[in-house]
Amino acid sequence: MPGVIVDCAIYRAGRRAETPGDLSDALAEARATGDAFLWIGMYEPTEQEFEHVRKEFVLHPLAVEDALTAHQRPKLEVYDDSLFVVLKPVLYDEDTDTVTAGELMVFVGDSFVVTVRHGEGGALSAVRRRLEHEPEVLRHGPTAVLYAVSDAVVDHYIEVAAELQADMEEVEADVFAPNPTDPKSIAMRIYGFKRQVLEFRRATTPLIQPMNRLAFGGVPFVDEHAQPFFRDVADHLTKATEYIEGLDRLLSDALAAHLAQMGVRQNDDVRKISAWAAIAAVPTMVAGIYGMNFDHMPELHQWWGYPLVLALMAGACVGLHRMFKQRGWL
Amino acid sequence: MPGVIVDCAIYRAGRRAETPGDLSDALAEARATGDAFLWIGMYEPTEQEFEHVRKEFVLHPLAVEDALTAHQRPKLEVYDDSLFVVLKPVLYDEDTDTVTAGELMVFVGDSFVVTVRHGEGGALSAVRRRLEHEPEVLRHGPTAVLYAVSDAVVDHYIEVAAELQADMEEVEADVFAPNPTDPKSIAMRIYGFKRQVLEFRRATTPLIQPMNRLAFGGVPFVDEHAQPFFRDVADHLTKATEYIEGLDRLLSDALAAHLAQMGVRQNDDVRKISAWAAIAAVPTMVAGIYGMNFDHMPELHQWWGYPLVLALMAGACVGLHRMFKQRGWL
Amino acid sequence: MPGVIVDCAIYRAGRRAETPGDLSDALAEARATGDAFLWIGMYEPTEQEFEHVRKEFVLHPLAVEDALTAHQRPKLEVYDDSLFVVLKPVLYDEDTDTVTAGELMVFVGDSFVVTVRHGEGGALSAVRRRLEHEPEVLRHGPTAVLYAVSDAVVDHYIEVAAELQADMEEVEADVFAPNPTDPKSIAMRIYGFKRQVLEFRRATTPLIQPMNRLAFGGVPFVDEHAQPFFRDVADHLTKATEYIEGLDRLLSDALAAHLAQMGVRQNDDVRKISAWAAIAAVPTMVAGIYGMNFDHMPELHQWWGYPLVLALMAGACVGLHRMFKQRGWL
Amino acid sequence: MPGVIVDCAIYRAGRRAETPGDLSDALAEARATGDAFLWIGMYEPTEQEFEHVRKEFVLHPLAVEDALTAHQRPKLEVYDDSLFVVLKPVLYDEDTDTVTAGELMVFVGDSFVVTVRHGEGGALSAVRRRLEHEPEVLRHGPTAVLYAVSDAVVDHYIEVAAELQADMEEVEADVFAPNPTDPKSIAMRIYGFKRQVLEFRRATTPLIQPMNRLAFGGVPFVDEHAQPFFRDVADHLTKATEYIEGLDRLLSDALAAHLAQMGVRQNDDVRKISAWAAIAAVPTMVAGIYGMNFDHMPELHQWWGYPLVLALMAGACVGLHRMFKQRGWL
Amino acid sequence: MPGVIVDCAIYRAGRRAETPGDLSDALAEARATGDAFLWIGMYEPTEQEFEHVRKEFVLHPLAVEDALTAHQRPKLEVYDDSLFVVLKPVLYDEDTDTVTAGELMVFVGDSFVVTVRHGEGGALSAVRRRLEHEPEVLRHGPTAVLYAVSDAVVDHYIEVAAELQADMEEVEADVFAPNPTDPKSIAMRIYGFKRQVLEFRRATTPLIQPMNRLAFGGVPFVDEHAQPFFRDVADHLTKATEYIEGLDRLLSDALAAHLAQMGVRQNDDVRKISAWAAIAAVPTMVAGIYGMNFDHMPELHQWWGYPLVLALMAGACVGLHRMFKQRGWL
Repeated sequence: MPGVIVDCAIYRAGRRAETPGDLSDALAEARATGDAFLWIGMYEPTEQEFEHVRKEFVLHPLAVEDALTAHQRPKLEVYDDSLFVVLKPVLYDEDTDTVTAGELMVFVGDSFVVTVRHGEGGALSAVRRRLEHEPEVLRHGPTAVLYAVSDAVVDHYIEVAAELQADMEEVEADVFAPNPTDPKSIAMRIYGFKRQVLEFRRATTPLIQPMNRLAFGGVPFVDEHAQPFFRDVADHLTKATEYIEGLDRLLSDALAAHLAQMGVRQNDDVRKISAWAAIAAVPTMVAGIYGMNFDHMPELHQWWGYPLVLALMAGACVGLHRMFKQRGWL
Repeated sequence: MPGVIVDCAIYRAGRRAETPGDLSDALAEARATGDAFLWIGMYEPTEQEFEHVRKEFVLHPLAVEDALTAHQRPKLEVYDDSLFVVLKPVLYDEDTDTVTAGELMVFVGDSFVVTVRHGEGGALSAVRRRLEHEPEVLRHGPTAVLYAVSDAVVDHYIEVAAELQADMEEVEADVFAPNPTDPKSIAMRIYGFKRQVLEFRRATTPLIQPMNRLAFGGVPFVDEHAQPFFRDVADHLTKATEYIEGLDRLLSDALAAHLAQMGVRQNDDVRKISAWAAIAAVPTMVAGIYGMNFDHMPELHQWWGYPLVLALMAGACVGLHRMFKQRGWL
Repeated sequence: MPGVIVDCAIYRAGRRAETPGDLSDALAEARATGDAFLWIGMYEPTEQEFEHVRKEFVLHPLAVEDALTAHQRPKLEVYDDSLFVVLKPVLYDEDTDTVTAGELMVFVGDSFVVTVRHGEGGALSAVRRRLEHEPEVLRHGPTAVLYAVSDAVVDHYIEVAAELQADMEEVEADVFAPNPTDPKSIAMRIYGFKRQVLEFRRATTPLIQPMNRLAFGGVPFVDEHAQPFFRDVADHLTKATEYIEGLDRLLSDALAAHLAQMGVRQNDDVRKISAWAAIAAVPTMVAGIYGMNFDHMPELHQWWGYPLVLALMAGACVGLHRMFKQRGWL
Repeated sequence: MPGVIVDCAIYRAGRRAETPGDLSDALAEARATGDAFLWIGMYEPTEQEFEHVRKEFVLHPLAVEDALTAHQRPKLEVYDDSLFVVLKPVLYDEDTDTVTAGELMVFVGDSFVVTVRHGEGGALSAVRRRLEHEPEVLRHGPTAVLYAVSDAVVDHYIEVAAELQADMEEVEADVFAPNPTDPKSIAMRIYGFKRQVLEFRRATTPLIQPMNRLAFGGVPFVDEHAQPFFRDVADHLTKATEYIEGLDRLLSDALAAHLAQMGVRQNDDVRKISAWAAIAAVPTMVAGIYGMNFDHMPELHQWWGYPLVLALMAGACVGLHRMFKQRGWL
Repeated sequence: MPGVIVDCAIYRAGRRAETPGDLSDALAEARATGDAFLWIGMYEPTEQEFEHVRKEFVLHPLAVEDALTAHQRPKLEVYDDSLFVVLKPVLYDEDTDTVTAGELMVFVGDSFVVTVRHGEGGALSAVRRRLEHEPEVLRHGPTAVLYAVSDAVVDHYIEVAAELQADMEEVEADVFAPNPTDPKSIAMRIYGFKRQVLEFRRATTPLIQPMNRLAFGGVPFVDEHAQPFFRDVADHLTKATEYIEGLDRLLSDALAAHLAQMGVRQNDDVRKISAWAAIAAVPTMVAGIYGMNFDHMPELHQWWGYPLVLALMAGACVGLHRMFKQRGWL
């Protein structure tokens, strides 16, 4: 078994039995007993590494091509010998506030499940461990694995959506802060946030239709009795997408509100300039008048001239200042 | 009976009969007579507290999980032994102008109804009391309870929508006030309002599809004859959502109008600055000229020089002021 | 007959026969002959006033509840014994440029029509008079009345849409006027207009689906042969809604254009300030220089100093003014 | 034959036969031979002028009403005895850059076509002439005429869309010109353009559904074998509408870009004012200082005082100017 | 064989056999053996050049008309004797950052494929060469060619989308650069980008529906077993269109963010002007005061008057500057 295989086991009656020596024998035996199935988990296999698996389980070449190259859309494809599901688990990095999407491909067939993982998100060891503690669930075979995997991925969507919601609140606090510390970065933050939302939507929205097929349609290789469970997953998925679309709309609104805020602030500043300029213009003008060199300016020759003019200047400034304050211009 | 059970009663032929001693016996008896049903109302039960109910009424584990954890989307789920409906009653807090959504889960089965409430909104005692005064309605059994509960929730949506409409009018008054007292907060208020609308839509929009199923489709455990009644509820729900979507669009328009208003005001202020600056520049310039120290400035040596220049300054200021007033610049 | 009944008559073979003495007898007789029907028109009846009618025609309690309280959405509801249609005729007030919606409920059953009117719009006397002059139409019974009423309501929509179009042209003239008289009110007018459009849409859009049911589906109590006629009404309704949606989009565009206009004007004003300030700064600066008190400033002692400097100042101002004019800054 | 009839002819086996003397006889004969049909073209007939035609061809009163009054929506209506199609040919006036929509109604029945034209656009003589040169097409009877007419109308849509595209390029050139000659009119032009687009959409969008019915559905009076041809028309129509919707979106984007451009220009101007004001403030301030009347200002009494200060002023101005240029502020 | 035919060959059992001498014979032979087909590739043929091909393969005149004139929408049309598919391969020019769409028409019939290419994009020699190295694919006949061609076109869409994504990142860097080198061009770049996106969407969006028909519906002349392959192409196409729609939305967001940024910068500049003006106003005012010509201004006659005032001016300037820095105004 090459090292790219993360885990591989046969499950009998819902319990982990053994690690199979040979895939063909294991699969034949599992199919014969009807109560067992194989679950192989791989991480970023190359074409050569995957060749053995592909042959044993008769996987469709198109699905295999998709499973080997990352950057697929979430989808559900039914082939003659197996079902192929692409999920995009997302990872939220708290430090950079970024969302990245990994890939998780699941092949479901008669008595086998192959999971192929690309990128960071969607580690399955926790899912496998949890399932191994619930034999009554695992007894339902490959369907149970598909359910558990998609449930884990979709539940994580809701967690990430909650993280984004928390970020949203920070953005709102920034936008509406009375004295924003860094107004220049607000538009950039909102935009960056929008990109994260787009990334998130690319992972989640195309999954709605496949999930609904699992929840309502008769998809082969999937146990009909599992439909309520997939319905539950589809419901959570819808919740996550609705949530994130709400966030997206709020972000647009926040940007528009930010623009309006800037307009208000700018107007305030413009009004303040005009007010200060008006106040400063008065003493300068008065000083200019008494700086004129006319021979006959009687005020200039009175001892009270200078103090009076100074008082007049100060008075005008104070008076204007008070008036502008009252009118809310300063 | 644990304290988490708010009320619990058997209804016979539309009338409250007694509080059942034992759920199993009561249910068996109700099913036998065919004319009776149990209605249990709970408030935020824990898993242990709910265990007894879950077992007696054979509720589906997925539904039970949803009923115990809040933060569900409105939905209708049909299981083998019961129907599960999630409603999100909203509460409007007049002081803070905020909308909060609680949760109300209803299990409807053969001869029983279980209502589970989370959060503040959607208290059911009034509904129960009203129903107990209308035995001809209550006679229809669990369907009547489901109808009465959803009717109450949806009717409250319309009331909250009316409250939001009243708020909208305040916002409009603020946006278009000739001298807004606090222009800085307008964008924030509109944005805050948009959040409330989003909260409201999250509660109402996903409910449309379930309500239409109750109104048109053949949902088990629901009396076919009740369809016109659910149609009425669905109609009110549509009205509430249409209403709130209209408000949402108006809010965007109000924000855009606010932005345009700010542009107009700013332009007014810019024009005013330019006008005042022009007026103030004239006497300052004239004073500067007569403050020059040339030897040969004949005006300086006439007795009429000073008063003439003062008059000239005043005249220019008054003239400009009048001109600018006429052109609407001041 | 209570005074709330506006008009009440039996029609036989398309012609007004008599005012019935007793509803039961009249209805029984009309049903017996098959060629006659009753048409009762009421205006804002109270529950008591409506009770008699409700009983005679076996109207459904939910429909009656809707008919008594105003503020319904347009809809079509089929009950066992009658059809219930809610229309929202609109009124356009030329003085205030506002659109208000009234309500018009129509019950159509076997050999009877009941019309209930709320609010100002949708007076039916003209419709009734016109129908009474077209016996070949009225012969088709209740269907003809329903058609005539909805035709009148929808035709009025088109008239109101034309009025709004005329208003739109006024708004456009305001937005793009070279010297708008009252720029402050433009955003308010556009916003106010949007509210009218919203009011109009609330009346018209929900009616599309019911009209299409009348035009295409097999609605009971409605003559199949009338479908082309209802198709015509549905077509006019679609025209009105498309028209008003076009207006709505134009309004948004007009607001955006207004915003851009304000930007252009503001920029013009900013450029003008800078130009005037530059012009005014030159003589002030020159005057300042020759107002300095240095002992050795040879120009000060020449007889040509003062006139030259004055000429220089004037020349600089004129030159700058001309240059700025050429560059389109002033 | 009244003068309102533009042209009227019988076609036999795809060739123009004669102008009929009497409509009834001609129609009866055409129907008898099965290989001939009548085509009557009218221009804005009055009710009286149309009465004869209406009777002969048993046209439906609702269709006749529509055909006589202009301002209809594009539609396809099937009646018992004929098909009624409303088309809205558009006219593009290059001088005023405006789009106006005329009306073209086509009645298609057993062995006859009636075309009624309102307004400027959609003259049919060219279509008729072209068809008369293609007897193998005209042989297919009324269907061929309907096809040829709608093909001509829709092909003209594509031409008008191309004209609008050319206008769009002019608008773009204006918006992004480095020194726009008339920035004030840009928003107005974009808005005016949007109105033309709206006019165009009103003519084209509602036609999509009727064309698809002709292309796919079994419409009576229309030859099934003509479906690929109507599919071609529907395809061109979709192209025209997609094209114009693309233009509409581009116009919104252009307006937004214009707004952003104005913001950039304004900011440039604001920065320039601040820079020039800073430059002008320096010599004024220095001159003010040396204009003070202190007894002990040693610089005033040196012969180098005045030239030094002048040099200092000039130096500061040049230095600041250079610095601002470097920083891109001027 | 005219020179407009780029390549022409008979394929037998998946291998290139020979260049046919006469089309009729070759086609008859291919149809007889059932295992062979003809593939003719043409480049911008004229009507005359195409006439021979049209006749041999009995192509539908409407399809031929479309194939000869460029500027078609992507579509799939089924005729009696052949299938007609229009694809729009796109070309991305790195130098001008522009997207141009060419045209690729494919006729698929019984034992033949005709490909007609217009414009720059979509050269097929690489596709043909690749196919000729995969005889097991080519063995599936015309369907394989149609698949290979559409796969190549759609795969190139994804590459172009990736190029546009890279451009997007440049635009983002420009928008959010702290000191953008050329802010004037940002709106223009975003707008130009939007045009490219529109061009791209015109090529891709209308193709979705045809591809889905190939992937799911029973299209004649297409091998049913190829459906999963066309599903794969449809899936990639959906990915490309979703991707580009995400870009389009991001561009709108970037433009809005740019607008908000401009608002912030402008406000900064306005605040800076006001601050500098306030600083410069102080010494000018003080100098004005001591430039007044009052007889009794005791400070003027003290030796410390001048230095004190100079110090005072400098102190006020420094103090204000520090204060404004602290408040973040400078």
